[in-house]
Amino acid sequence: MEDHVNLLLEIFLAFGAAKLAGEIFERLRLPALVGEMAAGVVLVPVLGAIHGETVLEVLPEIGVVFLLFEVGLGTPAKKLLEVGGLSLGVAVLGVVLPFGVGALYLYAAGHSGYEALFGGAALVATSVGITARIFSERGLLETKVARVILGAAVFDDILGMIFLAVVSGIALGGFSWLGLGIVILEAAGFVLFLIFWGRRITQPMVRQVEKFKTRNPAFAFALLFCLGLSVVAAEIKIAAIVGAFLAGMVLSDYDAKFRLKEKFEPIYDFFVPFFFFALGAKLSPEALFNPATIGIAGAITLIAILTKLLGCALPVWRMGFRNSVAVGWGMVPRGEVGAIVALVGLSAGVISEAFYGVVLFMVTATTLIVPPFFPIFLKNVKPSPGPAPETGVEVEPASPSAN
Amino acid sequence: MEDHVNLLLEIFLAFGAAKLAGEIFERLRLPALVGEMAAGVVLVPVLGAIHGETVLEVLPEIGVVFLLFEVGLGTPAKKLLEVGGLSLGVAVLGVVLPFGVGALYLYAAGHSGYEALFGGAALVATSVGITARIFSERGLLETKVARVILGAAVFDDILGMIFLAVVSGIALGGFSWLGLGIVILEAAGFVLFLIFWGRRITQPMVRQVEKFKTRNPAFAFALLFCLGLSVVAAEIKIAAIVGAFLAGMVLSDYDAKFRLKEKFEPIYDFFVPFFFFALGAKLSPEALFNPATIGIAGAITLIAILTKLLGCALPVWRMGFRNSVAVGWGMVPRGEVGAIVALVGLSAGVISEAFYGVVLFMVTATTLIVPPFFPIFLKNVKPSPGPAPETGVEVEPASPSAN
Repeated sequence: MEDHVNLLLEIFLAFGAAKLAGEIFERLRLPALVGEMAAGVVLVPVLGAIHGETVLEVLPEIGVVFLLFEVGLGTPAKKLLEVGGLSLGVAVLGVVLPFGVGALYLYAAGHSGYEALFGGAALVATSVGITARIFSERGLLETKVARVILGAAVFDDILGMIFLAVVSGIALGGFSWLGLGIVILEAAGFVLFLIFWGRRITQPMVRQVEKFKTRNPAFAFALLFCLGLSVVAAEIKIAAIVGAFLAGMVLSDYDAKFRLKEKFEPIYDFFVPFFFFALGAKLSPEALFNPATIGIAGAITLIAILTKLLGCALPVWRMGFRNSVAVGWGMVPRGEVGAIVALVGLSAGVISEAFYGVVLFMVTATTLIVPPFFPIFLKNVKPSPGPAPETGVEVEPASPSAN
Repeated sequence: MEDHVNLLLEIFLAFGAAKLAGEIFERLRLPALVGEMAAGVVLVPVLGAIHGETVLEVLPEIGVVFLLFEVGLGTPAKKLLEVGGLSLGVAVLGVVLPFGVGALYLYAAGHSGYEALFGGAALVATSVGITARIFSERGLLETKVARVILGAAVFDDILGMIFLAVVSGIALGGFSWLGLGIVILEAAGFVLFLIFWGRRITQPMVRQVEKFKTRNPAFAFALLFCLGLSVVAAEIKIAAIVGAFLAGMVLSDYDAKFRLKEKFEPIYDFFVPFFFFALGAKLSPEALFNPATIGIAGAITLIAILTKLLGCALPVWRMGFRNSVAVGWGMVPRGEVGAIVALVGLSAGVISEAFYGVVLFMVTATTLIVPPFFPIFLKNVKPSPGPAPETGVEVEPASPSAN
């Protein structure tokens, strides 16, 4: 193992570089997470400054589990039942269209079935943080456009998790139609079971934990529940982070009582930058920067933008052209889940380094392109009177990593 | 490296076992940290359930850095200047006597110079958390006895750090009188420099950090400062955790402004149990449980109790017999620093597994023996009127690990 000095030095370097780059990107009004990835690219593939697996494997692995746990904490299960028909339509068509078009294009362009599958799956999940922040800054969170988007995001998260579980299962077990059917059933069963039974399982545990005498027992229980469900998910060949996400979703019920989000914030702030740093660290600049790969990256990014825009605008076309395009545009950014899909494929050896770079390029580009053009589509969107939206999606004005 | 499922599974097992055992010990009115160590003994040397270095090396290593950072946060540098003469006397004689008697006894009993040195150094640092908690529970925090103890604890921490720095330097560089002189000068210089100049160094940094736009920049800065000083301390052959302690001490000035302790709590709650768990995991029951070792363990424990009692009671003998014995008894518990001294020696290969067990036995025994007998010595101690004590020592009623 790395000696003790190097361990602390590498943690210091990676965390410091990620935080500093995140800050620089924020000041340029770009997402901090792209800065954290950029720090990983510069320090590892370019400078070769970091070698230890603690910084490149262990802390990112824990970080991504905690990242998805936090996403889950922002997605209360009971809100799913309240998502309106419009939001549901936006979520479903906004998932089906990118996956279908993306996978077909890649397969037609001569990529392997695995790369087509992973590429399509990486196009699925919207990361709505940036959009929510723009609405928040402009005081538009209570508009119908914002409500439809934030409602769709909740359901989109769940669909993204199911896609991730399925491609993880395939990456680990190889592809077969029977295997595919089993993993879809498992994933859907696991998700539905926890949506409907999660509270009944946790309630007796929480009642015990409340009697505990040690400091912050509910917080320790939340961490254990997150780690425990991650292990269970991994054992049944669904990605560990799907378990972490569902753990967060189930525990979001108790957030108000135990201030889980608030207590979890420092854990998130410490661990999650290592995940984005490691995403960048795994990017091979040589593999990405050749004409053929850049062509694919451009095409995939274009497909990512157009299919999400169309898939999310169509179900709400009755809201008018500008409003429906605003909904579609707000759903364009992909983020952590897309990157995780690529990482799972890379780790399992079923997609190439170049293709990993393509997906990371798409994630970064869709994240960067949304803010500058949003004002155009939002010109006609005016704050509407009414109660505060109950979307279940948290809007944090200066979250460093969640874009 | 361990595969991903095992990584999360081992984290789950170790964290869960440590928390559960800590809870059981708390309910028995025993210190949680002893429970966390016991979990390590049961799961690793006895059951062999955990193998990965993440749980046994990496997380404990980060945990001990954060543990000492938190101790430092509770030891503001400026309070040192306010420690009264009585407290200063208690701290100094309470450090010199255990070290001298302990080291001489061990050397006379035929142990190597290294073991005598490490054994003596492990007897130095009081862990005053348990005592503070007893005073707090009985409403005696404002008595003169409590004030003298809590004042002495601040200075005792600093002296403990200097001893730790010196033995670490010797463990890494081998013993020589010249080397000893250099490392003492280095350690004292490092400590004094940060006590007197720490604020001037950090103030311009903090002013920059305040302008940052990312979430919780002051908290991220605090983590980086802690990691950075740990690396510096390790580079100049002083133990990394001495740097972490001093970082906490310097930043304690900013705690009120940035709520550092509060934000740091979840990080502490996650990482520190792994450290105590690993302390137990490294204990070889066979090496400890043989008649000769048990004899030494008993003798060292007796020396630890008597020398601290005498060394801390003598300087305050004018307070009367019962009061001075109460002060001495309150300073008896050793904790994390004693255990760290032993761990440094074990890792450097200069003390045996059996001797590591002896020190852990002493730490555990001095921690367990204090609470049951304290009421006897506190019989005559009555709450005295006066302002709330300004001791700089935090008293947290249910801290799980800090005893």
